[in-house]
Amino acid sequence: MKDRVDYTLYLCTDRELMSCDTVEQSVREAVEGGATVVQLREKDVSSLEFYDLAVRVKEITDKYRVPLIINDRADIALAADCSGVHLGQSDLPCKVARKILGDRLIGVSVSTVEEAVRAQQDGADYLGVGAMYPTSTKTDTEFVTKEVLADIRAAVDIPIVIIGGINQSTLSNFKGMGIDGIAVISAIVSKPDIRAAACEIKRLWTE
Amino acid sequence: MKDRVDYTLYLCTDRELMSCDTVEQSVREAVEGGATVVQLREKDVSSLEFYDLAVRVKEITDKYRVPLIINDRADIALAADCSGVHLGQSDLPCKVARKILGDRLIGVSVSTVEEAVRAQQDGADYLGVGAMYPTSTKTDTEFVTKEVLADIRAAVDIPIVIIGGINQSTLSNFKGMGIDGIAVISAIVSKPDIRAAACEIKRLWTE
Repeated sequence: MKDRVDYTLYLCTDRELMSCDTVEQSVREAVEGGATVVQLREKDVSSLEFYDLAVRVKEITDKYRVPLIINDRADIALAADCSGVHLGQSDLPCKVARKILGDRLIGVSVSTVEEAVRAQQDGADYLGVGAMYPTSTKTDTEFVTKEVLADIRAAVDIPIVIIGGINQSTLSNFKGMGIDGIAVISAIVSKPDIRAAACEIKRLWTE
Repeated sequence: MKDRVDYTLYLCTDRELMSCDTVEQSVREAVEGGATVVQLREKDVSSLEFYDLAVRVKEITDKYRVPLIINDRADIALAADCSGVHLGQSDLPCKVARKILGDRLIGVSVSTVEEAVRAQQDGADYLGVGAMYPTSTKTDTEFVTKEVLADIRAAVDIPIVIIGGINQSTLSNFKGMGIDGIAVISAIVSKPDIRAAACEIKRLWTE
């Protein structure tokens, strides 16, 4: 499975930003519009609610053969038999998570060359590099310049997804840099037509 | 290991109620005073902080050969190689947690006969029954009468720990009911001398 992951359009969910009523609906529309990976992010919900949601979303991603990745919670990923987890710098260390996740996917958020190299050494399957710009979901994050992004790309071999302020206008700044995909939240889920937004942003990135 | 768990004095940690500076110190003193099981409860900390704390506390509980149980988070329990998890009714379902935890301990919080029977059917190793009284940590919880506690004891075979308002004064109300242990938070960790409080409450319960 790992060799075949297509990171082109990596959707992160956001319950507060989405234009539709349910996370399931936003995922369905985004995947129908061309999202190739889905990361389920939840805060302030119980473990039971997170698990139940993961099970429901996985029915959708399975149907479209898209990997479902759980933010932070390796137990939810294991319990709902998801493809993997995405770990921030304040989540479980990648090396520790690897021990309990076997060969499931592990992505790690990084913003420096040092973090990127360490994540690769610790067994990460891919990196989420950012934030590239200020965003509504992350306002206190350190930003990554294009120069640092290029340095990270040169320093590691594993796939890189860029995140943080990537939208229809900004994505062109990162073409030709060897980036494997763009991670998008609001530029897809907050649009009135999620399917069309996903389709359009994928077209702009891949054309 | 499971057959040998002594539930007599089950300590739950609480960062906000403890009289000393660190969770590690409160656990050390409680275990030295006679706590036989420790459950680590954390809210509003990152997964990394929770994991790091679990690793530090486990050094103490291992030294005293006391099981360390993690509240809610099966991933933290697996990552820090703890004895098990304790699940509330809004955490992962016991049956699901069992699949990812192998033969580690699973405790389930219940307040009705139905919940107790289901937890046993779903593979729980022990039950936390409560709240027996209003407490500073749980104010919105449904209370369990002595009659319901007796019904639960009659309905299941697995060990029962009672929780919620159990202290030096109230514990005598539950003697002779076939209860395996008392779960205590503030009656131990909020006392100026945690070691002495644990020792005293254990003496009162077992005498």
